[in-house]
Amino acid sequence: MCNKWLLLYATAAGIQLVAGYAPVDVKLDEKARQLHKIDSLNILAYTVLLTLTVLTIWLFKRRRARYLHETGLAIFYGLIVGAIIKYVGDSQAEYTLLRVQPISDSRNNKSMASNIPPDSVSVPLVIADKSQNRTSNHTYLYVFRGELVNYAQGAGSQYISQKATFDPEIFFNIILPPIILNAGYSLKRRFFFRNLGAIMTYAFIGTTISCFVVALVVYALMVMLPSYNFNFTDCLYFGAIISATDPVTVLAIFNDLHVDVTLYALVFGESILNDAVAIVLAGSVDKFESQYHLGVLASTGKAITNFLYIFSASFLLGSSVGCFTAIITKFTRLCDFPLLESCLFVLMSYSAFLVSEVLELSGIVAVLFCGICQAHYTYNNLSDESRARTKQLFELLNFMAENFIFTYLGVSMFTYPAHKWVFGFILVAFIAIVAGRALNVYPLSFILNLGRHNKIPLNYQHVLFFSGLRGAMAYALAIRNTLSEPRRIMLTTTSVISIVTVIVFGGSTSSLLSLLGIPVGVEENEHEMLPFSEMKRTGSITTPTDLRSPTSPPSQQQSRSPYEKAWLVRKWYNFDVRYMKPLLTHSKPTLIDTLPDCCLPIARILTSTQQLTNENGFSKRKAEDDESDDDFVLQNESQLGSVSSYNGVGSRHSFERPVMGAEDRGLAALSRVGVNRDKCDYLDDECLNDSRSNHISVSRKF
Amino acid sequence: MCNKWLLLYATAAGIQLVAGYAPVDVKLDEKARQLHKIDSLNILAYTVLLTLTVLTIWLFKRRRARYLHETGLAIFYGLIVGAIIKYVGDSQAEYTLLRVQPISDSRNNKSMASNIPPDSVSVPLVIADKSQNRTSNHTYLYVFRGELVNYAQGAGSQYISQKATFDPEIFFNIILPPIILNAGYSLKRRFFFRNLGAIMTYAFIGTTISCFVVALVVYALMVMLPSYNFNFTDCLYFGAIISATDPVTVLAIFNDLHVDVTLYALVFGESILNDAVAIVLAGSVDKFESQYHLGVLASTGKAITNFLYIFSASFLLGSSVGCFTAIITKFTRLCDFPLLESCLFVLMSYSAFLVSEVLELSGIVAVLFCGICQAHYTYNNLSDESRARTKQLFELLNFMAENFIFTYLGVSMFTYPAHKWVFGFILVAFIAIVAGRALNVYPLSFILNLGRHNKIPLNYQHVLFFSGLRGAMAYALAIRNTLSEPRRIMLTTTSVISIVTVIVFGGSTSSLLSLLGIPVGVEENEHEMLPFSEMKRTGSITTPTDLRSPTSPPSQQQSRSPYEKAWLVRKWYNFDVRYMKPLLTHSKPTLIDTLPDCCLPIARILTSTQQLTNENGFSKRKAEDDESDDDFVLQNESQLGSVSSYNGVGSRHSFERPVMGAEDRGLAALSRVGVNRDKCDYLDDECLNDSRSNHISVSRKF
Repeated sequence: MCNKWLLLYATAAGIQLVAGYAPVDVKLDEKARQLHKIDSLNILAYTVLLTLTVLTIWLFKRRRARYLHETGLAIFYGLIVGAIIKYVGDSQAEYTLLRVQPISDSRNNKSMASNIPPDSVSVPLVIADKSQNRTSNHTYLYVFRGELVNYAQGAGSQYISQKATFDPEIFFNIILPPIILNAGYSLKRRFFFRNLGAIMTYAFIGTTISCFVVALVVYALMVMLPSYNFNFTDCLYFGAIISATDPVTVLAIFNDLHVDVTLYALVFGESILNDAVAIVLAGSVDKFESQYHLGVLASTGKAITNFLYIFSASFLLGSSVGCFTAIITKFTRLCDFPLLESCLFVLMSYSAFLVSEVLELSGIVAVLFCGICQAHYTYNNLSDESRARTKQLFELLNFMAENFIFTYLGVSMFTYPAHKWVFGFILVAFIAIVAGRALNVYPLSFILNLGRHNKIPLNYQHVLFFSGLRGAMAYALAIRNTLSEPRRIMLTTTSVISIVTVIVFGGSTSSLLSLLGIPVGVEENEHEMLPFSEMKRTGSITTPTDLRSPTSPPSQQQSRSPYEKAWLVRKWYNFDVRYMKPLLTHSKPTLIDTLPDCCLPIARILTSTQQLTNENGFSKRKAEDDESDDDFVLQNESQLGSVSSYNGVGSRHSFERPVMGAEDRGLAALSRVGVNRDKCDYLDDECLNDSRSNHISVSRKF
Repeated sequence: MCNKWLLLYATAAGIQLVAGYAPVDVKLDEKARQLHKIDSLNILAYTVLLTLTVLTIWLFKRRRARYLHETGLAIFYGLIVGAIIKYVGDSQAEYTLLRVQPISDSRNNKSMASNIPPDSVSVPLVIADKSQNRTSNHTYLYVFRGELVNYAQGAGSQYISQKATFDPEIFFNIILPPIILNAGYSLKRRFFFRNLGAIMTYAFIGTTISCFVVALVVYALMVMLPSYNFNFTDCLYFGAIISATDPVTVLAIFNDLHVDVTLYALVFGESILNDAVAIVLAGSVDKFESQYHLGVLASTGKAITNFLYIFSASFLLGSSVGCFTAIITKFTRLCDFPLLESCLFVLMSYSAFLVSEVLELSGIVAVLFCGICQAHYTYNNLSDESRARTKQLFELLNFMAENFIFTYLGVSMFTYPAHKWVFGFILVAFIAIVAGRALNVYPLSFILNLGRHNKIPLNYQHVLFFSGLRGAMAYALAIRNTLSEPRRIMLTTTSVISIVTVIVFGGSTSSLLSLLGIPVGVEENEHEMLPFSEMKRTGSITTPTDLRSPTSPPSQQQSRSPYEKAWLVRKWYNFDVRYMKPLLTHSKPTLIDTLPDCCLPIARILTSTQQLTNENGFSKRKAEDDESDDDFVLQNESQLGSVSSYNGVGSRHSFERPVMGAEDRGLAALSRVGVNRDKCDYLDDECLNDSRSNHISVSRKF
C-alpha cells in the first residue's frame, strides 16, 4: 500500500504543476454519464417490466388462469408504467434545447431541394472555459430525430421524447427477426403444408381484401373529415399495416388448450404469412404512390409486379441462405465445435434478414422461409448440442422479444411524443377492421369450401374471424414513420387497436372456443393416428395415387384440389427427397443413387463421406431420421394425392406413439423406397401393413 | 382473384378523387427506407465479418493453428473491411448536412452557461411541397452526436461517421454485460478462491500501480509536448483505462493447451477483477478532477473513499441480486416452466448491471459478482433444462459479443471519425504500459512470495507480465467519450495498443509458454487429484485444522497466509454452508437444523418443502449436489487452513474421476457433517478414508 500512497501524493503534486486545467472535459464526462444513466434507466424499466410479466405469467399458469394472456399482461404493465413515467416521472435530468436557424447562404441546400429535412445540422458554438477565462470555437454535429410536434406546449414534451423510447429501427432490425425466425424454425410443417392452399388463400387474397376494405371504409370517413389531409394512398397504407394479424396471443391459448390441429394450422399459417403479405403490401402502396405519375393502370400494374417480385425474391433469398447454411454444416464438419456451429446458424439466419433489407426486399419474408429451410435441412446436420441450443435460444429470444414489444406498446402510449388522437378515426378504424376481417374470412371460406371435401365448418370460420388480433407487426409498421400527421394518427389508432384486440379478444379466446364448441384437449398424436387406423378399418384407401398418406383425417379433408397443384407439390416432394435432401443433408439416398450416371463425378463430390460410408452414420442418425428427416409434409393424400410423412420437429408427441409410430416410420421408409423405385406407383394395403419389415430392409440396403 | 382486381380498380379511381396529394410523406418514407438500408448494411457488415471469423476459427481449430487467435482474427478482418469501407465504399447514399447557427436571442441559454453543447437543437424549416405549390413550416428536433472534427476536410468525413459505427453506449449497455456475466457464471471458483490473495493483490494494488506508472510516464512526455492540452488527470484517466487487461485471448489459448491451473487462475482472476478495478478507477479519477477545488489531500481522500464505496456497493448490489434470484427460484417452483425460469435468470442478471449503472455504481463489478452468486446459489435451484439453456446462452452471447467488439475495434480504426493520431504518444504509451505491467507483476510477486510457501515461480511471473494484453474493456472505456482532443488521442492510442497486443502478444502466447517451460497439457482433474493421493502417501496432513483439503497441491501453495484472513474466509464458508445455502438453495442442512431454536418459526418459513420432505428430493438432486452444491472453494488448507471442496460447474472433468470422485464426494459430505456436528474440529486420516460410507450415512440421515 505504501507505494500507492506515494504515487497518489506524486499525482497530487503533479496536478499542481499543470498550467492549463480544463474542466470542460470533466463536464462532458459528467454529461455522458447522465445520458448513460438515462439510457440504463430506460432499459432497466423494460427489464423490470419483463421480470414482472414473467413472474405474473408464472402465477397465472400455476392457477390456470386464461382470462388475461401474457401479451395482454405485458401491455397492461406497460400502460401503468407509461402513465407513471408521464405524470409522476421526475424531470431532474437537465435536458437542454437550443433554438437555431439555418444560415442564410445555405438555404439552397440540396436537402431543401428534395423537400425533406436534412439528415444533420452543424452548429458552430463558442464554448467558454471559465477556469481559463478563454473561449474556443467548436462545430458540433446534430442528427435528425423527428418533428417537434408539441413544441407549443413547452419544453416538457420534448423531454418526454427522451424517456423510455427507442429508435423504431430497433423493432425492425433487432426485435422482429427472432420472432419471425422462431415462427419459421418451430413451424409445425406437417399441419402447415396440409392446409397450404387455404392458408395461402387467406394470407394473400384475404389480406389484400382486408387492406382494401379498411382503406375504403376509412377513406369514406376522411372525405367527411378533410381536415386531416388523408388521401387514399394513406388509407391504403393504413389498410396494409392494420391487416397484419398477430399470431402470438391466440396461438398461445390454442397451445395451452390443445385445440384441434386443423384450426391451429389455419390460424397459425394465416397469421404468419399474413404479416409477410402486409409488410410487402405496405411497401407496394408506397411505391404505388411514388409512381402515380405513370397513370393509374400502369402504376397499379407496377404495384402488383412489385408485390410479386418482392415476395418471390425474398422467398428465394431466404430459402437460399437456409440451404447455404445446410451446405456449410454438411461439408465442414463444424458439428465438432457446437459453439461455432450454433453461432454460424444464428449469424446466417440473421444475415438472410439483413441482406434482404439491404436489397430492399422483405426481410420478414426472407427470415421466415430461411427459418423453415433451417428446420428442414440444416437442423439434420447439426450436432445434438447445437440442435438443443438453437431451439432453446430462439424460444427464449422469441419470448423476450414478444413481451418486450407488447410492453413497449403499452409504455409508448404515454411516452411516445408523436401520438395524435382522433377518436372518430379510431372508431371508424375498428368498424373497418371488423368489416375487412369478415370480408376476408367468410367469403373466402365459402369459396374454399366449394373446392374442399373437408369443409371448414362455420364455427372454425368464427374463430378465424375472431383471431384477427392486431399486434406486434402492425405496431412495428406504424411506428416506423411518424413524421407526417396522417402517419401519427395511424400510429395512435394502430396502438389502440392492438391493445384493445389483444386484451379483449385475446382474453376471451378460451370462452369463445367453448361457446363455439371447438374441440379442445385434442392430443396431436391421437388426432394424427386416428386416420390411419380408420383408413385401414374402412378400407377407404382405394384412390390410385403415387403413395399413401398414413395421416389423412377420415372425415375432414376429403376434398381434392386441382390436379396441377397436387402434381406440382408431389413433384417438389420427389425433387426434395431425391436431390435437395441428399445435397443438403446427410440423408439417404445419396445423389450418387439419384442423379443420372453422367453426373456421377459431381454427385461424388456432393456426397459426404458420412453419407457414403455408413450404415454406421445411418444408424447413428436413424433416430433423428425417423423424426425429422421425413418431416416435409405435403398436402395429404385425399387432398393432393401425395404422400405425407410426419414432422418430428413440430410434433413432440411423436415419441409417444408406441405402435403406430413403427408403422409411421415404416411408411416414411416406404416413401423413400417409393422414390427410389420410381415405378412404385401403387401400393396396396398389404404393402402398407408390411411396411415395418420393408423399412428394415431399406435401411440394410443403404 | 376477381374482387381483388375490382378493388384495385376502385383504388385507382379513388386516388383520382383525392384533391390534396402530398408526396412529402412518400419522400419521408423513402428517406426512412434509405436510413434503414444503411442501418441494415452496417449490421450486415458485422454479421458477415463474424460469420467469416467463425468459419476461419473452425479452419484454424481443425488445423490446430495457434499463431493467430480468433480475437486477433476478428480484428484482422475488421481492419480489412474498415479500410475497404473507407477507401472503396460508395457514397451513393445522399447525406445532407445543413449549416445552422444559434438564434441570437437564445445565446444566454442554460447550456451555454454550463459550458457544454446542448443536448438538442430545434430547427425551423420551410418545407416546400412542389406538387401543391405550397410550403409549410415545421420545427424539427436534432440531437447531439459529436464534434465535427474533420470539418475542414469537407463533407466526406461526416459521411463516414454514419458508416459502420454504433453508439458507444451499445458497448456498455449491450455488449459488455454478457461477457462479464459469463465470466462470473463460468468462473472456475475453486481455482479462483484458492489464489484469491494473490489475485486481489495484483488486481487492486497492481492495477493502481500500473495506472500511476502509465500516468507518470505519459505525463513526462506531455510536459515536453504541451501543445496537446493534456493535464495530469487526463494522464491518470488514460492510465486507468489502459490498465484494463483482456482475459479473452490468452485464456482461450491457455484453455486449448490445458496450461497449469494455478497460472490459469492467476491470469484469469487478475484480468477479470482488474477490468472492474480499472473502470472504477477511471470513474474515481473523473470525480477526483471535479473535486479538485477541495484541495489535494481532501480530494485524494475523497477519490479513495469513492473507489472503495463504488467497489463495495457494486459488489453488494450484484451479490444481492444474485441471492434474490436464488430466493425467487427457490420459493416459486418456477422450475416447472423452464422458459420462464431462464428468462427470469437472464433478466435479473441484466438488471443487476442496469440498477448499478443507474445508481452510478459500477455495473461491471455488479454483474461479475451477480454471475458468481448465480452460479453458486441460483444454479442449484434451476431445472436441468434451464441450467443447460443459461450456460449455452451465455456461452453463445459471450462468443458473439467478444468477436463483435474486436471486429468493431478493427473496423473503427478506419471508420470512426474521432481518431487523432499522435505517434509519439502511442510510442510512449507502449513504453508506459510495459513499465506499468512490469512494476505491477514483479514487485508484487516478490512481496507475495515472501508470504507464500508455494512461490510464484519466475516463469509464471513472466507469463503474467506477458498476458497483460489490452482489449475490449480498455477500448469500450476509451470510446465512451471522444469529445475533447486528449480523449481522442487516448482512443486512437488505446485502439492501436489493443490491436498490437492482441495480435502480437496473443499470437505468440503458445510459443512463449513452451519457451518458458510452462507445464501444458495438464488435465485439471489429474492435477486436482494428485495432491490428495500425495497427501495420503506422504502423510503430510497433520496440521490441526477445522477440516481438510482433499485438493491442495503438494509442493505448491504450502504457504500460510495471515491467520485473520484464514479465519475470515473459514467463517464465511461456515456461514455460507449453514445459513446462505440453506436459505437460498434446496441444500441440506436446512435452516431448521442450523438456526438457534428461538428462530424456529422463521426457519420453517424459509425452508422449502422440497428441502424438508425428502430423501426424495435429496436423492433426486444428489448428483448435482455432488457437483455443484459443494462448489464453493476456499483457499486450500495449506494456505488458509480450511476445507476445499470442488467446483463442478467449472470443472467438466469431474465426471471422469472414477475413484477419487467418490472420495471427493465423501469429503464434501464430510464437510457437511463437520458443519453439522459443530464440534468436529479435527478429523484424522482414518476419517478421510472412511468418508465414502460416512457420506452414505449422511444422506440417509437427511
